[in-house]
Amino acid sequence: MKAKSPEADPDCDDNRIQRRARIALAAVCEPGEAGLANLIDMTSPTATVASLLAGRRTLVRVPRAEAIGRRLAALDLAALIDRGEEIGARVVLPGDPQWPGRLADLGAHRPLAVWCWGEANPRLHTVRSVAIVGARACTRYGEWVARDWAAQLASEQLSVISGGAYGIDAAAHRGALAVEGVTICVVAGGVDMAYPRGHEGLFAEIVERGVILSEAPLGETVRRRRFLTRNRLIAALANATCVVEAARRSGSARTASSAAEMNRPVLAVPGPVTSETSQGTHRLIHDGIATLAADVNDVRTAIDGMFVSPDPADGPDAVSASMREVLDVLPSSQTSSAGLRLEDVAVRSGALAPIALEQLECAERMGLVERRGTDGWVFRATLQRDGRV
Amino acid sequence: MKAKSPEADPDCDDNRIQRRARIALAAVCEPGEAGLANLIDMTSPTATVASLLAGRRTLVRVPRAEAIGRRLAALDLAALIDRGEEIGARVVLPGDPQWPGRLADLGAHRPLAVWCWGEANPRLHTVRSVAIVGARACTRYGEWVARDWAAQLASEQLSVISGGAYGIDAAAHRGALAVEGVTICVVAGGVDMAYPRGHEGLFAEIVERGVILSEAPLGETVRRRRFLTRNRLIAALANATCVVEAARRSGSARTASSAAEMNRPVLAVPGPVTSETSQGTHRLIHDGIATLAADVNDVRTAIDGMFVSPDPADGPDAVSASMREVLDVLPSSQTSSAGLRLEDVAVRSGALAPIALEQLECAERMGLVERRGTDGWVFRATLQRDGRV
Repeated sequence: MKAKSPEADPDCDDNRIQRRARIALAAVCEPGEAGLANLIDMTSPTATVASLLAGRRTLVRVPRAEAIGRRLAALDLAALIDRGEEIGARVVLPGDPQWPGRLADLGAHRPLAVWCWGEANPRLHTVRSVAIVGARACTRYGEWVARDWAAQLASEQLSVISGGAYGIDAAAHRGALAVEGVTICVVAGGVDMAYPRGHEGLFAEIVERGVILSEAPLGETVRRRRFLTRNRLIAALANATCVVEAARRSGSARTASSAAEMNRPVLAVPGPVTSETSQGTHRLIHDGIATLAADVNDVRTAIDGMFVSPDPADGPDAVSASMREVLDVLPSSQTSSAGLRLEDVAVRSGALAPIALEQLECAERMGLVERRGTDGWVFRATLQRDGRV
Repeated sequence: MKAKSPEADPDCDDNRIQRRARIALAAVCEPGEAGLANLIDMTSPTATVASLLAGRRTLVRVPRAEAIGRRLAALDLAALIDRGEEIGARVVLPGDPQWPGRLADLGAHRPLAVWCWGEANPRLHTVRSVAIVGARACTRYGEWVARDWAAQLASEQLSVISGGAYGIDAAAHRGALAVEGVTICVVAGGVDMAYPRGHEGLFAEIVERGVILSEAPLGETVRRRRFLTRNRLIAALANATCVVEAARRSGSARTASSAAEMNRPVLAVPGPVTSETSQGTHRLIHDGIATLAADVNDVRTAIDGMFVSPDPADGPDAVSASMREVLDVLPSSQTSSAGLRLEDVAVRSGALAPIALEQLECAERMGLVERRGTDGWVFRATLQRDGRV
C-alpha cells in the first residue's frame, strides 16, 4: 500500500489513519461480502489492514482474505485519493454527516464506504426517497410510467433513486431531473466509470443536481456480479422500491426482494398480461412480495406510511433530539399563516442558525414542516411533533 | 292467481302443488331479497302463498309483502308455465337434480327457483366452472384476454359463466363456444328476454350448447337493479370469479365482492395503469379482494385449489358416496393405458350403467377421472380417491 506512513505526515492523527485504512479496505474487498464490516467494527480499520497484509488468516474470518491482502499490498491509495480530489468525488464513511444511516439495515452486508460524486447530500436526500427501477429492455409504456411518476414524486421533494441503466432507470432519473428534482444514481463500477457510456450526458446532469454513488473505488470497471450487489444498495437507500417493468427473472426482482427483506415497502406496476416486461412485476404482486401500484398515489402512500409507524423514533433517520428542539418552537400550519422566521427559530430553540436551517430542511424532506413565503416555517398541523399523525 | 285449483286436477299431488306455489312466489318476488326463502322453508310454498294472498302481514316477515301479495293475485301462472313448455325452458327448484347445490351459499339471499333455457345441466356444468366477467366498454386487450382464457378453460371441461353483456361477457361466452365448450349465461330478465337484443345470435348459440339461466320469470324485462342481484348469482354459481377489465365502480367489482364474501377465489387481470378499464381490477388486487391473474394458469390453479381443500367431502358438490363407489373401481391413469369400460365399471361398482356414466361424467368435470379411447375410464394418478392431491 503506497501511502505515506503516518509518522512522516504530521497532519495524520489517528482518525485520519483509520479513515484511510477503511477507504483502502473498501477499495479492495468485494462489496457486500459478509465478514469484513463486522471485523473492522470489532477491531479497527488499521488492525484489519495489518492482519490482511500479514496474512493472519486465523484472525481474519473473511472470504478470500488472501486475495484481499494481495490487492491491499498493491493498492495505490494516494493515487485513488488524488483522483477523487481531481474530479471532485468524495468518500463518505459510516458516521460521517453525509452517511445514510439506513445502510445499517444491510447488516453484515453493509458497505464499508461509499464514493459520492455530485452536489446532493446522500443522507439528507434519502430521508424521503423512492427507488424506481426496472428493465433495460422496457416498453414505451413502462418508460412513460417511470418518467411520469418520478417527475411527480421529485416535484414533491422526494429523491428518485435508480441504477443509471438504459430503459426504466434512465426514465426515472430523467423524470426527476425534468422537474429539477434530486436524483441519486447508484452504480456498480466507480462513480467516474459510470456505465453505460451512452448515458454520459445523463450522468453529467446527475452530478450537477443529484449524486452518483458507489461502493466501488474510482476507476473500477463494471463487473457482472457487481450489478446484483449494487441492487441491494438501491433497496437499502430508498424508503420504498417501485419496480416498473421487469422480466420474470431480473435484477429488479432482486432489488425488490432485498427491499422486502429489510421490511421496506415494495411496489410493482402492472401492465398487460401479454407484455413480457410485465411478467416480473405481476409475479412480484401475485407472490405477495410487492403491492400493486395503480397510480403514483399508491407509491406516495407507501412512503408516507413509513412516517406514521408506531414509533418513528426508531431507526437512524427518525426525528432526532436536536431536530425536535427546533420543531418544538414552530407554530402550527393551522394557526400561523406567515410562519416563524429562521432567525427566530434559532433564537427560540437555542440552535445556531445554520444548524437550525439544516434541521428544518431535513424536517421538510421528511414532510414534517412547510415553508411559508420566503423565510417562514410552520409545523404541518396534521402531525404530532414526534412525527406521528 | 289463475291456476287450476288442486281439487279440479287429479294429476296434482301435494308435491306438484308445492312446486307450482314456489314457481309463483319466485315469479313475483324481488330476487335475492332476504326473508321469503327462509319463510318458505320454515312453512311451505303453499302456506306462504296463502299468507301473502290473505295479507297476513304479521306472519309474513317479508319486505314489501303487500305488493308481492297483489302481484301474486294477478299472476297468470298457467300462462307462464305454458310459455316455458312452448319455448322449451324449464324451472329448476332446490333439490331438483339440476339444482346447483352451491346456491345455498347465498344464505337468506338464495333464489327460490331458476329458469333455465338450453341443453346444459346447470348443476353438472357448474361443478368445475369459472365466471369471467368485466366491463361492457372494454378494450380490445380485455376482449382478447376474456376470449382466449375462456377458450383455454372451456377446452379443459370447465364451464364459463358470464352475464351475456357486450364487451368482456360476450367475449368470454364466445371463447367457450369457439372450442365447443359449455357456457352459462346468467341474465337479469327472463331467459326468453335476454338482453341486449344485439346478442340474439349469441344467445341462440348458448341455448344450443350451454344454458341461459335466470331468477326472473319468463317474459320479465330487464330492470336496472336486477343487474346487481344477478351478479351475486354469477358469483355463487362459479368455483372462482375472474374480472378481466372493470372501471373503478362497476357491476363486476360487485360480483367480485359477492364471490369474496362466499370465500370463493377471486382473480383480477391487470392491465396498463393508463387504462381506465383496468382501474377496477387494479383496485381489487390492491385492496386484497382479488389475486392477480397474470395468465390462465393462475385461474386454473385457483379453481383446482378448491378440489384439494382439507375436506372436499364438505359442500354440496364434493365427491358423493355414490360417486366414490364408482371411483373406487377405476384403475389409475399410471397403471392402465386402456382404462376400464363403462359396463365393467357398472358391474364392479354395483351401479346401473346410466348412473355410473353420470357419475363418471361428473367426476370428469371435477378433474378426477379421464377417458381413455372410446370407452375406457381411469382415475387421475396424481389425486387421492377422495379428490385430495
